[in-house]
Amino acid sequence: MALGEFDLIGKYFTRSTPRAVLGVGDDCALLQPAPGQHLAVSSDMLVEGRHFLSTVRPERLGHKALAVNLSDLAACGARPLAFTLALALPRVDETFLAGFAQGLLALADQHGIELVGGDTTAGPLNICITVMGEVPPGQALRRDGARAGDALWVSHPLGGGIGDARLALEAFRGQISLPGDDFETVRRAMEQPQPRVALGLALRGLATAAIDVSDGLCGDLGHILRRSQVGAVIQASQLPLSPVLARQARPLQLDCALAGGDDYELLFTAPPDRQAEVLAAGQAAGVGLRCIGQLRAEPGLVLHDDQGGLQALSARGFDHFAG
Amino acid sequence: MALGEFDLIGKYFTRSTPRAVLGVGDDCALLQPAPGQHLAVSSDMLVEGRHFLSTVRPERLGHKALAVNLSDLAACGARPLAFTLALALPRVDETFLAGFAQGLLALADQHGIELVGGDTTAGPLNICITVMGEVPPGQALRRDGARAGDALWVSHPLGGGIGDARLALEAFRGQISLPGDDFETVRRAMEQPQPRVALGLALRGLATAAIDVSDGLCGDLGHILRRSQVGAVIQASQLPLSPVLARQARPLQLDCALAGGDDYELLFTAPPDRQAEVLAAGQAAGVGLRCIGQLRAEPGLVLHDDQGGLQALSARGFDHFAG
Repeated sequence: MALGEFDLIGKYFTRSTPRAVLGVGDDCALLQPAPGQHLAVSSDMLVEGRHFLSTVRPERLGHKALAVNLSDLAACGARPLAFTLALALPRVDETFLAGFAQGLLALADQHGIELVGGDTTAGPLNICITVMGEVPPGQALRRDGARAGDALWVSHPLGGGIGDARLALEAFRGQISLPGDDFETVRRAMEQPQPRVALGLALRGLATAAIDVSDGLCGDLGHILRRSQVGAVIQASQLPLSPVLARQARPLQLDCALAGGDDYELLFTAPPDRQAEVLAAGQAAGVGLRCIGQLRAEPGLVLHDDQGGLQALSARGFDHFAG
Repeated sequence: MALGEFDLIGKYFTRSTPRAVLGVGDDCALLQPAPGQHLAVSSDMLVEGRHFLSTVRPERLGHKALAVNLSDLAACGARPLAFTLALALPRVDETFLAGFAQGLLALADQHGIELVGGDTTAGPLNICITVMGEVPPGQALRRDGARAGDALWVSHPLGGGIGDARLALEAFRGQISLPGDDFETVRRAMEQPQPRVALGLALRGLATAAIDVSDGLCGDLGHILRRSQVGAVIQASQLPLSPVLARQARPLQLDCALAGGDDYELLFTAPPDRQAEVLAAGQAAGVGLRCIGQLRAEPGLVLHDDQGGLQALSARGFDHFAG
């Protein structure tokens, strides 16, 4: 790309950064972390065909690219501070850039996080965002603090559930057919996930472990179980399902909810005697919360199914989509 | 990629991170910035064919991917602290990964910077690194502090010069032919640049402005001139050239030195009465330093050529390679 084209890209992404000491336009951005806070850092790279489809609207892609990174801060209980954006584009496409920047920066504004720097280059479409947030020492939500006896919780949209993003992907792939309105509903879940930042903050000092559901509930739960050296039982009947997913066949419901991925909801554990506080945290954050099971000392993950039977799930999770 | 392949990737990059509160393996890494320090942040994305050739050895590619990011910290006078790596790979290739990780982590160790997190995914080869460093408030080297009358300096390898990386690229492209030893020398300059971190630290409180030479000396100087609202005169006779570049035709020497790019040397300005301190900083950092011109109030960039004539250079720099 010629210099003029780079200037064009800057036009869409360069804004004032009142919280940064020095924003876009120098070799580095300069940030002033609040005294005594720990800095939480995470990077996610999004590639077409793997993390998004070519049919996605640029506004939604911009939203999602930042959302999946904010979701990591949420899972850590960190307050968003700043992010960098590195973008490889096959060609400079103003319509794409304008929409992408709009979706990205609208979500950034919602969460008070500033774009402080980055890089643009010619290349196959690739979006890499690094987020930074703040968390008081000792208060970060980690994966290794779950204890036997803790309740297992998952967040969900009010009036909705988990697994919708995967249902949308199945529809895109032609594996199932959905009425137009239902398709639009689950498509939005896939393309415009809402990072649970407020919930993550509300769970500081309350959740014993947390992770965001990006690869599928069972697989992500497996990370908590391994790091915390505990096992878990999930009650299938307690999984929160949206009306659209609830209209599908039961096996597909379970596949989507347990192995779907791309939910960006928080999966966390908390002592059973703190249920009222957990529910209050969900209410304060404006999200639904459902207790879907319990941790136990015996290793492994077990599904308590609708008929009251128990089914052992493999360490790799519950994935009928794989292979 | 299947889970097992991701585990494989982790094997090459996961190491202990004694300075981080929490390293690789959770939703976020947790860092503890030193009290009162500013945090310097920069991201660079490297794409095959644009930032490196497919023929590069994986060790050197790993080195270069981190080096270009460390160079941004150097240009800011920041002390390296931590970095994240996001990597898209067409397929899991153990030989590539082992070499890449070796080159990357060897340079990380040299500069005491820890790999604290990141992401790996299937996709066209893409390397995105975000570096974080620390700098005391008010001591960062910026682009906007140059003043008329300041001396203009550029760093270079001891016994070497600037422009070698570009000479190597011209040889790769078949535009010129070099004897084998000369080719290997300049190829190493292109593939294994040395970030001037120690120099950047030594220039705190001494340089009035600084940038690293990534796009070409004139173009990068243009950023300082615009941000500082000054002009400059460069003395062609003072440009440091390696023995290999010095054997080329004079026009090619100037093209490579003034517009070559990929040097990752520091270009900086300092008050003329501090020449002895500047030279001492170079000596302490183990790099060569050459005064190549002076800043002046009159805007624009002028080249004082070998015959004593003056040649105005465009804002885009001195680039006979373009178009």
